[in-house]
Amino acid sequence: MPDTPDVINYAESGVDLSVAEDLTSRLKTIVESTRTSGVEGEFGAFGGRFRLTEAADLVASADGVGTKVLVAAAAGIHDSIGEDLVNHCVNDILAEGAEPLFFLDYFACGRLDPDVAEAVIRGVARGCRTNRCALIGGETAEMPGVYESGTYDLAGFIVGRRIWDLPGKNAVRPGMRLIGLPSNGLHTNGYSLARRVLFDNMGLQPEDPFPGLGRSVAEVLLKVHRSYLDALRPALETGAVTAIAHITGGGIPGNLRRVLPGDVTAHVDTTTWTPQPEFEELARGSGLSPMELFSALNMGVGLIVVAEPDREREVLESVAAAGLAPFGCGEIRSGDGGVRLVGI
Amino acid sequence: MPDTPDVINYAESGVDLSVAEDLTSRLKTIVESTRTSGVEGEFGAFGGRFRLTEAADLVASADGVGTKVLVAAAAGIHDSIGEDLVNHCVNDILAEGAEPLFFLDYFACGRLDPDVAEAVIRGVARGCRTNRCALIGGETAEMPGVYESGTYDLAGFIVGRRIWDLPGKNAVRPGMRLIGLPSNGLHTNGYSLARRVLFDNMGLQPEDPFPGLGRSVAEVLLKVHRSYLDALRPALETGAVTAIAHITGGGIPGNLRRVLPGDVTAHVDTTTWTPQPEFEELARGSGLSPMELFSALNMGVGLIVVAEPDREREVLESVAAAGLAPFGCGEIRSGDGGVRLVGI
Repeated sequence: MPDTPDVINYAESGVDLSVAEDLTSRLKTIVESTRTSGVEGEFGAFGGRFRLTEAADLVASADGVGTKVLVAAAAGIHDSIGEDLVNHCVNDILAEGAEPLFFLDYFACGRLDPDVAEAVIRGVARGCRTNRCALIGGETAEMPGVYESGTYDLAGFIVGRRIWDLPGKNAVRPGMRLIGLPSNGLHTNGYSLARRVLFDNMGLQPEDPFPGLGRSVAEVLLKVHRSYLDALRPALETGAVTAIAHITGGGIPGNLRRVLPGDVTAHVDTTTWTPQPEFEELARGSGLSPMELFSALNMGVGLIVVAEPDREREVLESVAAAGLAPFGCGEIRSGDGGVRLVGI
Repeated sequence: MPDTPDVINYAESGVDLSVAEDLTSRLKTIVESTRTSGVEGEFGAFGGRFRLTEAADLVASADGVGTKVLVAAAAGIHDSIGEDLVNHCVNDILAEGAEPLFFLDYFACGRLDPDVAEAVIRGVARGCRTNRCALIGGETAEMPGVYESGTYDLAGFIVGRRIWDLPGKNAVRPGMRLIGLPSNGLHTNGYSLARRVLFDNMGLQPEDPFPGLGRSVAEVLLKVHRSYLDALRPALETGAVTAIAHITGGGIPGNLRRVLPGDVTAHVDTTTWTPQPEFEELARGSGLSPMELFSALNMGVGLIVVAEPDREREVLESVAAAGLAPFGCGEIRSGDGGVRLVGI
């Protein structure tokens, strides 16, 4: 176990986001070739929109939980990863103003262990019940030769109904406020980085204490991706929300810009909150620059709401009343469609 | 390369269907705990049903393409597997009387090769266009440590609208006819078995000629899973179809029984069609019994329609007019909810 971990960059930890971004632009044309009359919204939104009828304005999203599955497998704790998946999907369609209707899962593994599969799906079902979403289907696949021994993957698919007509990206204007909602740790992103730092560089095991914390590495890393549905519902009901960014892969810069028109910049004041201790440890252990960290991890912010200045207080109070501790974290100014992190 | 391949059973080829069946029954209770007011239909149907409004009677399905992805990867032919996936999903919701609305994909790999990912998604998009289904979202995940080197997995999610009110399982009665629609080869099931026989036992490479056929192993194995949407549409429009079974994992016995009430038996006369030559080769090479083969592979039948006797001719003619060669393949009799294969 080295005392001084190697400096690593995010590409070296196994995931190169720039390759993913290049691919995304290549896929845009392909995806648009399939457009039918029901399709609404833009490529790159948090959820795909399909308006079947006025009463069935649907939003759908497909997601996985990344290599958090490897942490679950290493720790032998399989019953929370499904909840991560559902909550991740719920937040994605929430960002498009939708409430969940139903969910389907895809579970694939090298060798089917019915107890593991059952635990995983039990987590999916718990996530569904919490978000009042019906689990109406799924696929369990045994695929020797595709999955490494003892590993599995889990993908989910959600469909919701757009019941809140968010003004969205095109209504975001200079002067608007940014409100951060705290994450519950890493959520479902940055696990290749975290595993590299904690398991490879520091030589820790899942059951070891997380450095400086009273909990095990597994407990800290497996904290469940938070659903923001109930916390944001009151503010959505009163129309206080202009746009929502779910902070997942790509972090604040990669996701907040998805709700910015080209003529504004989001100024995020990173001194307005304190990331959970695990982010500090990953910062120290990885040797990554603050900008690299903010592009790989949510750094303590799970969701950012854009609101008119005169609605900021309403959003803060209603989210706080739901038990979270939201914080004003910046503002929209004139600009170039980018995100500026202040204070790092 | 052994001249006389070992006798193998399907469990030994890497997939044990009895474990999967046991798991399915364990999942039923878990899934039903998530039921909400929109849910219709029964656990175990080909697609999950969610009735949002009368005009939005939705059917959804999640699927993968099994280890056909390994054949695609071994052959370096990545642009058809997506079409397999879409067509598989289309047939599943067709079995519940639904026409496709939209699709989402999940592509995950150990190391993202943008060219491979683009080819795969291009196949998904082609499948979507053919079935007039919009590709409204997807997830591309790079997950080193989960996926074996050079491999990937692909899952898909479809949502359709139930526009044909199929009488379905509960209306299936003795005297009804079974009509088979030919598959286009293995479709997306039995690839662990096929790979074991062809690659491991016979020592063939993807580019080698398939024994007794003028095409390569890769060409034969990668023939695209057929969509039955257009072929069945006329019969569905005129109400000639009582129920539909999509023949996937579990073969005819495992899937046809999904549309049988407990007091009937489906008698399938296996002499009414000739499986494609690849099935004969897999039969010879695997040493499996006919019953094992029929439980692992579709054996040339991609979909079975149940129809009233006086509508059989209409189904046969309308499917034939669409360019397929359907065949009467048996009937429903009083019984115990099972499938009896006659002539094997």
